[in-house]
Amino acid sequence: MKLGRVTGKVWATAKDPKLNGLTLYVMQPVDENDKFLGTELVVVDTVGSREGDLVYWVGGAEATFPFSDRQIPSDATIVGLVDRLDIVTDGTA
Amino acid sequence: MKLGRVTGKVWATAKDPKLNGLTLYVMQPVDENDKFLGTELVVVDTVGSREGDLVYWVGGAEATFPFSDRQIPSDATIVGLVDRLDIVTDGTA
Amino acid sequence: MKLGRVTGKVWATAKDPKLNGLTLYVMQPVDENDKFLGTELVVVDTVGSREGDLVYWVGGAEATFPFSDRQIPSDATIVGLVDRLDIVTDGTA
Amino acid sequence: MKLGRVTGKVWATAKDPKLNGLTLYVMQPVDENDKFLGTELVVVDTVGSREGDLVYWVGGAEATFPFSDRQIPSDATIVGLVDRLDIVTDGTA
Amino acid sequence: MKLGRVTGKVWATAKDPKLNGLTLYVMQPVDENDKFLGTELVVVDTVGSREGDLVYWVGGAEATFPFSDRQIPSDATIVGLVDRLDIVTDGTA
Repeated sequence: MKLGRVTGKVWATAKDPKLNGLTLYVMQPVDENDKFLGTELVVVDTVGSREGDLVYWVGGAEATFPFSDRQIPSDATIVGLVDRLDIVTDGTA
Repeated sequence: MKLGRVTGKVWATAKDPKLNGLTLYVMQPVDENDKFLGTELVVVDTVGSREGDLVYWVGGAEATFPFSDRQIPSDATIVGLVDRLDIVTDGTA
Repeated sequence: MKLGRVTGKVWATAKDPKLNGLTLYVMQPVDENDKFLGTELVVVDTVGSREGDLVYWVGGAEATFPFSDRQIPSDATIVGLVDRLDIVTDGTA
Repeated sequence: MKLGRVTGKVWATAKDPKLNGLTLYVMQPVDENDKFLGTELVVVDTVGSREGDLVYWVGGAEATFPFSDRQIPSDATIVGLVDRLDIVTDGTA
Repeated sequence: MKLGRVTGKVWATAKDPKLNGLTLYVMQPVDENDKFLGTELVVVDTVGSREGDLVYWVGGAEATFPFSDRQIPSDATIVGLVDRLDIVTDGTA
C-alpha cells in the first residue's frame, strides 16, 4: 500500500454502472513526511475518508478486494485512515 | 483511476478478435490541472467518450471488469467522463 | 494498451513449456509520433506481426487473455497491428 | 520480488476489516547494497519481521497469495527475511 | 517479458512456506545491448538458470503461472534462457 492525502472530489454522471454510489476522490500520493509525490489519482473510498485525510491505499487488482460482491473497475482504492506513523529507524545502514 | 484526455482514434484491422466492435482511442494521461503527463496510451472506451473529453480510466486487470461477458485483452479502459473536479485542499500540510 | 515497434526476434531453447510454439519478439515502446520510449520488451505475438510493424500491446495479466485455453506466463502480448492513427486534438486545453 | 528495509510502523483504526489483526509497516525499497530507492511503502508482514530487518517483498496481486483463506486488499507484502546475499557477478558483460 | 542478467543468490530461512524449495536469485534487468537498467530484483527461477545467464522473465500475476499446482507469492519469475537475439531493425522510422 502507499500513503496518500485526499485533496478533492470527482463529479461524474456518465460512468461505468458498477461505480454508481461510490465516492470518487482526487488523491495525492505522499511519502512518510507528507511530501507530495508523482501525480494525482482518482480513487474509490471505502472507509469514510474526507478531503484532507492521510490515508493508505492499494493499487492494482487488489483495489477491488474490498468489494467482494461485485467486480468494481477500480485500480486505486483507499483502505485505511492513518492515525499515526512511528518511524523507528531511518534505514541508513 | 487516473485522469486522461482523449486525443485521437486508432484504426486497426488485424487485432485480437475479442477487441472487435470496441472503439480504441489514443489518450494522454493528464493531472488535475489538465497538464499532460507521460506517454499516450491506446484505450478501450466504455462510456461513449469522444476526442477532446476529460475522462478517468483504469489500468491493469481491472480494465477488463466492465466487460463481464468476455475476457478483453485490455490494460487501459475509460470508465467515466469527468463533469467537474472540486479541489478542496492543495495538500500542502 | 501501448504502442510499440517490433525490432527483433528472440531465440530460446530452455523456456517454460507453456511458451512453446509462440513467437517472441523484441519490441520498443513508442509514442504516437513513433518516438522510442523506455526499454525494449520481450513480447509474445498473437496477430502475425513482423519486424518493423507498428503494433499495440497489452501488459500485465491481460497479456494472457488471448490464450483462453492455457495460462501463458506472458506479461506483454501484441494484440493488434495499427493501420492508422488519427490525432484529432493535441490535448492542450 | 524486491528488497526492502523495514523502517517504521503504521497505526490505523479505521481500515478495511480484512486488514484487522495484520501488522502494517513502513518499508523502504533498497538495492543489493542497501541503498534506499524510491518511496516508502506501507506493507503487510507475514514472516514476523521487525523494524530494521532486510526483507524481500512481493507487489501486485501476488501480495495476497500468502493469505489463502481470505482476499486481503494488500498490494505489498513481506514474504521473507534475507539471511545473506551472494553477488557472484556484477553483471557487466 | 523483460530481459535480465542473473547476478547473485538469495539465502533466506524465514520465508513464506510456498517459496520452500525454490531458487531465489538476484537479477539485474538489462536491455538488448546488455546494459543494466533500474534496480536489482529478487526472482524465482524455473528453467535452471545460473549466475551470469541472460534470461527473460515475467512480472506481475503472470509470474505465478509456471506453478500451476500452487499459488506462489512471486511477482518476478525467470521463464526462459536467451540463446540469441536478432535485432532486425533499430526501429528509427
